[in-house]
Parts: sequence; structure tokens; C-alpha cells
Amino acid sequence: MIQSVAFIGLGAMGYRMAAHLPKHFKQVYVWNRNFAKAEQHAAEYPTQAVPLEQAVQADVIFSCLPTSQDVEALITPLTLKAGSIWVDCTSGVPESARKLASLLKTQQVDFLDAPVSGQTIGAENATLTFMVGGNVTAFERALPAMQAMGKLIQHVGESGAGFAVKAVNNMLMAVNLCAVAEGFSTLKAHGVSLNAALECINASSGKSAVTESVFPQRVLNRQFPLTFALSLLAKDTGIAQDLVREARLSTPVIGLTHSLIQAANSLAEEPGDFSTAIKMYESWSKITLE
Amino acid sequence: MIQSVAFIGLGAMGYRMAAHLPKHFKQVYVWNRNFAKAEQHAAEYPTQAVPLEQAVQADVIFSCLPTSQDVEALITPLTLKAGSIWVDCTSGVPESARKLASLLKTQQVDFLDAPVSGQTIGAENATLTFMVGGNVTAFERALPAMQAMGKLIQHVGESGAGFAVKAVNNMLMAVNLCAVAEGFSTLKAHGVSLNAALECINASSGKSAVTESVFPQRVLNRQFPLTFALSLLAKDTGIAQDLVREARLSTPVIGLTHSLIQAANSLAEEPGDFSTAIKMYESWSKITLE
Amino acid sequence: MIQSVAFIGLGAMGYRMAAHLPKHFKQVYVWNRNFAKAEQHAAEYPTQAVPLEQAVQADVIFSCLPTSQDVEALITPLTLKAGSIWVDCTSGVPESARKLASLLKTQQVDFLDAPVSGQTIGAENATLTFMVGGNVTAFERALPAMQAMGKLIQHVGESGAGFAVKAVNNMLMAVNLCAVAEGFSTLKAHGVSLNAALECINASSGKSAVTESVFPQRVLNRQFPLTFALSLLAKDTGIAQDLVREARLSTPVIGLTHSLIQAANSLAEEPGDFSTAIKMYESWSKITLE
Amino acid sequence: MIQSVAFIGLGAMGYRMAAHLPKHFKQVYVWNRNFAKAEQHAAEYPTQAVPLEQAVQADVIFSCLPTSQDVEALITPLTLKAGSIWVDCTSGVPESARKLASLLKTQQVDFLDAPVSGQTIGAENATLTFMVGGNVTAFERALPAMQAMGKLIQHVGESGAGFAVKAVNNMLMAVNLCAVAEGFSTLKAHGVSLNAALECINASSGKSAVTESVFPQRVLNRQFPLTFALSLLAKDTGIAQDLVREARLSTPVIGLTHSLIQAANSLAEEPGDFSTAIKMYESWSKITLE
Repeated sequence: MIQSVAFIGLGAMGYRMAAHLPKHFKQVYVWNRNFAKAEQHAAEYPTQAVPLEQAVQADVIFSCLPTSQDVEALITPLTLKAGSIWVDCTSGVPESARKLASLLKTQQVDFLDAPVSGQTIGAENATLTFMVGGNVTAFERALPAMQAMGKLIQHVGESGAGFAVKAVNNMLMAVNLCAVAEGFSTLKAHGVSLNAALECINASSGKSAVTESVFPQRVLNRQFPLTFALSLLAKDTGIAQDLVREARLSTPVIGLTHSLIQAANSLAEEPGDFSTAIKMYESWSKITLE
Repeated sequence: MIQSVAFIGLGAMGYRMAAHLPKHFKQVYVWNRNFAKAEQHAAEYPTQAVPLEQAVQADVIFSCLPTSQDVEALITPLTLKAGSIWVDCTSGVPESARKLASLLKTQQVDFLDAPVSGQTIGAENATLTFMVGGNVTAFERALPAMQAMGKLIQHVGESGAGFAVKAVNNMLMAVNLCAVAEGFSTLKAHGVSLNAALECINASSGKSAVTESVFPQRVLNRQFPLTFALSLLAKDTGIAQDLVREARLSTPVIGLTHSLIQAANSLAEEPGDFSTAIKMYESWSKITLE
Repeated sequence: MIQSVAFIGLGAMGYRMAAHLPKHFKQVYVWNRNFAKAEQHAAEYPTQAVPLEQAVQADVIFSCLPTSQDVEALITPLTLKAGSIWVDCTSGVPESARKLASLLKTQQVDFLDAPVSGQTIGAENATLTFMVGGNVTAFERALPAMQAMGKLIQHVGESGAGFAVKAVNNMLMAVNLCAVAEGFSTLKAHGVSLNAALECINASSGKSAVTESVFPQRVLNRQFPLTFALSLLAKDTGIAQDLVREARLSTPVIGLTHSLIQAANSLAEEPGDFSTAIKMYESWSKITLE
Repeated sequence: MIQSVAFIGLGAMGYRMAAHLPKHFKQVYVWNRNFAKAEQHAAEYPTQAVPLEQAVQADVIFSCLPTSQDVEALITPLTLKAGSIWVDCTSGVPESARKLASLLKTQQVDFLDAPVSGQTIGAENATLTFMVGGNVTAFERALPAMQAMGKLIQHVGESGAGFAVKAVNNMLMAVNLCAVAEGFSTLKAHGVSLNAALECINASSGKSAVTESVFPQRVLNRQFPLTFALSLLAKDTGIAQDLVREARLSTPVIGLTHSLIQAANSLAEEPGDFSTAIKMYESWSKITLE
């Protein structure tokens, strides 16, 4: 039975995720590099802001950091409690998951790669999806803690499988981002109403999360709210591309999409939402997607 | 007020679509090149199988044929009734729509390009989506007839706009077909459970009609039921590609996808469902998507 | 025997090409839309600047204009001399060649599509390559006139074949322009000397006209002399792309290259040499190819 | 002054390369995993077939193996002579060159990555190109030994730079292989004579080593002589692709070409020459490139 849970990394996602834990668990530790954020969390919710060394003595430790490199740097010097489970919600690198799983095994700690989807609204409403790789028994033991924050909690394979699914998911989103930008530029060039086209496509076989939410909520209204950075999407499409390379596969659309997202990210002059990738297409077509 | 309606082309879609018309209109003519099919329809439903020349005297004439070339060949020699409206549900070529609209104008007949989506099940349940290009007044006059067969009836622009939206819709579906095949081959190569991955992605930003229906209903179960031929998808991605060329745009993902669908179609030894395009990827990866 | 030759279109290529004709033929007419250019030519060389109607009474008429549209507009209203041969050196559209060949046949005039390569230096030295489509007998009759300006004069097929070969040639050059820009950015990112790399590649299997001349003479020295406009290259890659479409082929590299050249051309703020296409890559990589 | 030279790896290239060394150096050791090959060499040329441990006591040691993995496996357990230079002519991985350079430095041995181009004919005639990465002083000391076998011996940068240039060279060749296959299928579909087209292109801006040698000598004559395996080309395009990834660049044409070569290699049922990659295109187009 899980008595104590820790949450490390209180960014836009982590801050909201950790807020649900006290409803289900007696002891909830929070920690953040900028520690003021942890103290703010403990003031707002019944959590305890404690030093990292203390936090990681919990039965289940969640982490949610920008990259796998950050997670490795954090975990490597730590001494953990035998029998505990580390659940990493970062959108990370499968190879790093395998490495950390091996490393923690020497301390009799399980490592699960458990990236989430659902954005800040899903974190807020505890309706996130967890795609989890690693030992099944550990998965089952950590399940109640994940259920406190998510709706669909899915074991997808061995160590690294969770990160792999997340990378492929984000790649598929990126493919649609590019393809919809291309298709809608073409439609606008031919005088078609984009909102009318969107309505038709969302009732048809061409629909995707990009046509259902990204385009109406971020692009066509020209808002581009910064909730998931383009640079992070470029990192994720790169992870997907690396999976392809390791498997020696031929994936032309994935490869091209990574090139395009990489180019769009290089062109961005300041940090922007992933949806600003479409501005590269606008610079080519001189057509504004609105 | 619409008194008579005709339906020309009783294929898998047309046969089911025409069946709804007698519920709303007194006189419903049906015609099919293989006329036995028309007679069968008139036996099964309260429609009248009549010669083409008579059918096209209806107030509203629907056509649903394989290609725009077929529609042009059919319409060109006909004499129509002034004031009637021709509604073409073929997945056709925008340029052909403009040509036919001009041609029929000389007979005081309106031509609407009104391709549909929703597949045979949508035709059966009268829940199709109509994406319609052409004169707005004609659209409004023909609306009741389309409503008899569809749910979302959307005017999207001038002549050709309906065909353009359909072509882009099918292109977006093709992009997802390729990208999901690539992504899922990669996941399987890394030992990830495809069904578990699918469940996660369908709750996340990577979802599309391909992950929600095509892969579970056609690919992963290895059924590939022939309801929409790969050769027709190749025709449609070609129409989208031509729209790009006319507009002098740069659309790398669309261009590549057309190449891939074209290659997959060339490789197919016999007519197959559009979803069999993924078999080209399987021949590359030696990985079966199941 | 050819007694009289005309040259229509005295641009950078035509002006130099026409200069060789008086060495071989008694009567050489020149004409240019901006007629002052024709008069300048007649002052500099033993040619005659005459009205268009007179020029086109020559036995062999050469034209060298920016596009096939210009050639069609020029030819359509003209009355020509039966038995004469029109040799069009424009980098044109194969379909237009077939159309003009048909049209001129009604006046008993042969039309050869005969685009040239070799640039202004080849025009200057009469060492151009002519790739010629059309009737073989007409080709043989016009041969001496082409030999006055070129070195390799090659019949490649029926009407349109000359334009097709030129379009594919320019497409292959465009492919190399993109690929070398990509490869050399990569080498520079890894600290490799580009000039040393160029020397190795030019002695190896990766060499092309782009590594042998375009990069050393235009890019690495940052000169980008405007001798062949990027917009014309984009036109030519478009012609190649259209040939692919007509033949219903799958050509992923050609398709992608056309997209890239199209994008680079859209981004160019002012008319520039084709080699400036590499600046799009530089904007992506922040690496200057020098 | 170099007294003794060794050559390790007597494949199609190495056997011919080593044959030139006795003309310039007193002691030439040869070694091959299948030692009979070394003995055969020593019978045919004034070289000495000796055990590996003895061979690597030479002043300059050449190696020429299929992959960097083979070289690492070979070198790692060896004890070398301080002050000697190891010159690796394998088409290898830049990262491996840096690793081996570090490793050998601990034994006071220099490692140069020095892949060659020029094929067996160049090996036979001692006209190879060496593209060399590593310490400049070591390069200059080893220069006479390389000059015994090559014509252009070029230092291109630090450790790994030689392998990088070779990988990019082979990638550029692969790009042309694909693009020429696409372009020539298109020309043939339009009835153009491929030999005539080739002659024109080889006198024009679209020429490359592929149009000048690969197509006339391997493809159009349907010989496909196995001198450089498609699987090795796929390895090399993968190395180029990895260089792109490390540098975080956007290289759409390189990425797509690697996908295509990878697919063609997967499809090949038995080991074949790199030029057989065009058969994938032929299966798509049903057009034989002859």
C-alpha cells in the first residue's frame, strides 16, 4: 500500500498534477529546483515542500522535467529507498529509460517511463493519459498513484515503451500539423472557406486532433497560446526519428516531418507554441491561415 | 419546391443514398449504366427506373460516379430542364466542376459539386457529410434533397470548392495512413504492444480517423474490407496534388504522400481497399501490423 | 539548303547565339520585342534587324524566350512560309511543343523543341548542347543552323521530348543543389573544411555539375552571379513535376525537390540567381556555406 | 622515415591496394582474417603474410574492413608500437574514429580515418582518393604510404572528418541514383530515348557521377556488377543521416534518400550491387530503365 508520494518538477503540468495527490494519499512531498514553487504548492494544497533527499524517500516518486537529460542528472547521485517506484512523466528518451531502470535496479527501485498526454487541462481535471513502460508488477503497484491524476493508465511494454509511444504520438501530431497547414493553404489559395472546410473534414476521414483542436483553438484564431513549446516538439520528433534509426526502418513521412519541424524551430526567433510551426508554411505561401 | 429527384449511378454509395429519397419526395427516378441495378432499386424501394433522358428531367439530379471524366461523358450530350439543379456527389476534379457549371449554365441549369463522406454506413443511415461548391442560391434550393441523405450539409465556396475539400480530406487521411504505418512499425520493432499504443494515441494529440477507425477496423485485424479502392485514393491524392500545382505552393508532406500512395497502388496486384497501402511498408520493414 | 535564318529573342543567350549565324548563312534576320536590342545586334554583327513579319519568312527561325506562353503568344497570329522550320530554344513545356507542332503543320511548317544548355559561355563559344524533339527529317534539315551555335546536337524523340529532357536535366541540377547544400551544412557543422571536402567529392562518386561548378563558382565564393534566375528554375522543376503527374509515376525525390525550390523561390525577396536557393537552408541551419 | 607498412583486410579493395606498397617500402606485412588470402598475396607480390600481432608492429598500419565495428573489434585488444600510425580506410563512423583516436593515443599511436574512393579500378591503378581526418602531423608522416596507392590525398579536418566526407559523398551519389531513376522513368514514360537523354544531360548542368558512369555502366546495360553492395550504401547513407541528427539540422532530401535506400535494401532478396536500388522504382513504374 502506498503511504507516501512525491512529485518532483512543478512546471505547468507537474504543479497541477501534484495537486490531486493529497486527495488520495496521506503524505505528499513536493520539490522543485526553484524551491519557492514547491513552497507555493504546499501553501495552496495539503502537500509538503521538502528537500530533494527527503522527497525521494516516498513510496512512489513522480518526476516531470523538460528532458531525459534533466532526469538523469537528477537521479544519478541520489540514494533511494529499496522497494520504492520512480515514475517519470517526462517526454523522454527510450534508451534513457532503459539506462535508468538498470541503474535503479541496483538500489532495488523500479523505474517506470510514464509520459502523459492531455495538456494542462487534463492535468487540472485528472483526466490525463499515462502510457507506461517497465516492469508490470511495478506498474500495478504504482497504478493507484497514477489513477489519482489520470483517466486512461495503459501499460504498453518494457522499459522505454512509454517514451516510445509518446514520441510516436507527438510525431503523428506533427505530421498532421504540417499536412493540415499544407492542405489548408491549398484550399485558401482556391478560395475555399477554411472554417467551412474544417467543419466538413472534422466529420470525415481526414480528421485528426489537429483539425479538431489545434487548428480551431490555436491557428485559425491566430492565438498560438504557448502551452507546449515548438522546441519540445522538435525534441520529440527527434526522439521518434532516433527510434526509426535504431530499428533500421524506412519511414519517409516521419523523416520529412522531423526535417520540417526542425526547420520551423530553427526559424522561430523566440520561444513559441508548437502550433507556430505553421508560420514557416505561411512564409512560403504568403497565405495566412485564418 | 422540389417535386422530382433523380439519382444517377447506383454503386455502393448511390444505391443506399437513393433509398432515402422516396421518404421525402413524390417522384424519384433512378438510373444506372447497368440498368438491371436501377430496376432492382425500383423493386426494393418506391423509386422509378427510367431511361436517362427522362431521369434528367427531374428538379434535382444527383450523380455519383467513379470519376469526373465519367460525369463529363454523361452530361455533355444531355438536354436538361431549365431551372433544374445537378448535384454531383462524385469525388471529382475542381476544374471539371467549373467546366460543367459553365456548360450547364447555358441550359439555365445549376451545377453543384457536392462530394460526400461517411462511407456506406453513412449512406445507409442518411448521416453523410456533403461538402458543396457552387452558387449559393442553388445550394439552398437543393438543400432539402441533400438533407434527405446527409447530416452535415456545408457550402464551402464557389464551383470546385466541394471537390477541393474532399480531395484535401482524402489527402489528410492518406497522410495519416502512411504516418501511422511508419509510426506503428517503429513501435512494433521496439516491442511495444500496438493495441495498447493505439488506445493511448486515441486519447492523445496524435489521434486521427486513421487511428480511431482505419487501423482498428481494417489493418490490425488484417481484414482490409474493400469499401474504398486504393486506386480511387490514388486518384484523390492526385487531385489534391494538382490543386497544389495550380496554386504554385510548396507542400512537401502532401507531395511525398501522393508519391507513396501512387507507389503502393502500382504495387497492388489486384484491386484492394485503400488500407492495403500499408502493405508496401510491411514489405519494407518485414513487420506485420497486427 | 538553308539560305536565310532568323533569331527571335535576343536575351543573354539569344544575343550571343545569333552572333554566330552570319558566319554560316547569307541572310540572318534578328528581332526582339525591345527592338533597340535587335538594332544593336545588327550594328555589332552582320545581321539584319527587321520587323517580325519579315523575320519569320526565313528558312529556319530560332526563338529563345522566357516561357512557352511567350512563344505561343508570338507564334499564334503569324503567317509563316511553307517548308520552313521553327526551332524553339526556350526551356518550354512539352505539351506546348505538341500543340505548336500541330498548329504549324497546318501551314506546312515544322516545329522543333530545341532547348539548349551550356549557359552564356556556351552561347559565346558556340559550344551549346541542343536537345531536340520533333520530326527527324526537319531535325536533319535544321541541323546545320544548330551546328553553327552548338557542339552536341541531339535528337531525343518526338515533339516535346526536347523540352522534357531539359526539364529533367534542370530538375537533376536542382536535386543536387539541395542535396549538396544539405550535405555541406552537415560537414561544416562537424568542422570539416568545405573546400577540402569539395576536392575529394569531385574526385569521387558524389560529384555532379553542382559540386564541380555551381558550388565553387557561385556559392562558396558568395558571388551568386545572376545568370539563370531562381524563378526560372522553379518553373522548370514544375515542368518536370507535371511530366511525372501526366505519367502517373511515383517520384518522391523529384517531388520534394520541386517543393523546396518552390519554397526557396517564394522566400526570395528579389530576383536572384538559382544558386541563391541555398539561402533557405542557411536560414534553417544558421550555417553559411563558404 | 617509414620502414615498414602493414595492410590488414585484403578484400576487393585492400588486396589491390596492398600490391603497390612493396614498390615503395622495404617491409610490407599483410594480414587477413581468412589467412589464406594473405598467403596468396605474399605469393603474388613481395609482401609477407604474418600473424596480426606482428603485422601491427609496422610503422604505418592500414586497415580496410566492412564497418567501424569490425575495426573496433580488431584494434581494441592489440598492443601497438609507440610512434606508429594507424590509417583506417574503412568507410566508417566518425564517432568511432574519435573513439579509436583517443584509445590509440594512450599507446602513443596516431589514428587517421582515411576512407578512399575510386573503386577497384582506382585501387588497381593507384589512383584512389584519400579523404583523411585526424592529426595533421600524423597525416604528413603517413602521406608517402598513402601516395603509394592514391592520387589525391586530402586532409579534411579533425578525427572523424574523413569518414564524414566519405559518408556525405556516398549520400550525394545515392541522391543522384534515386533522382536519375525517377527522372529517367519519367522520360521513358514520355517516349524519350534514354541514351540520347543521357548524352545531353552529361553535357549539361544535370550531370553527375551517376549519369556519367553508374547509369551507362551498370543500369542501362542491365549488368549491375556487384562491386559495392547496396547494404553498404544503406550503411553509409545511415552514417550521413546520423551526422545530420547530431548536428540537429534539417535536411529533407538527405533524409528521404536514406529512407528510399533503406527500403530498396530491405526489398533486395539477395546481396546486390548498390545500383540495384533502382529496381524498387521499376517495381513502382513498371518501366525498365534500359
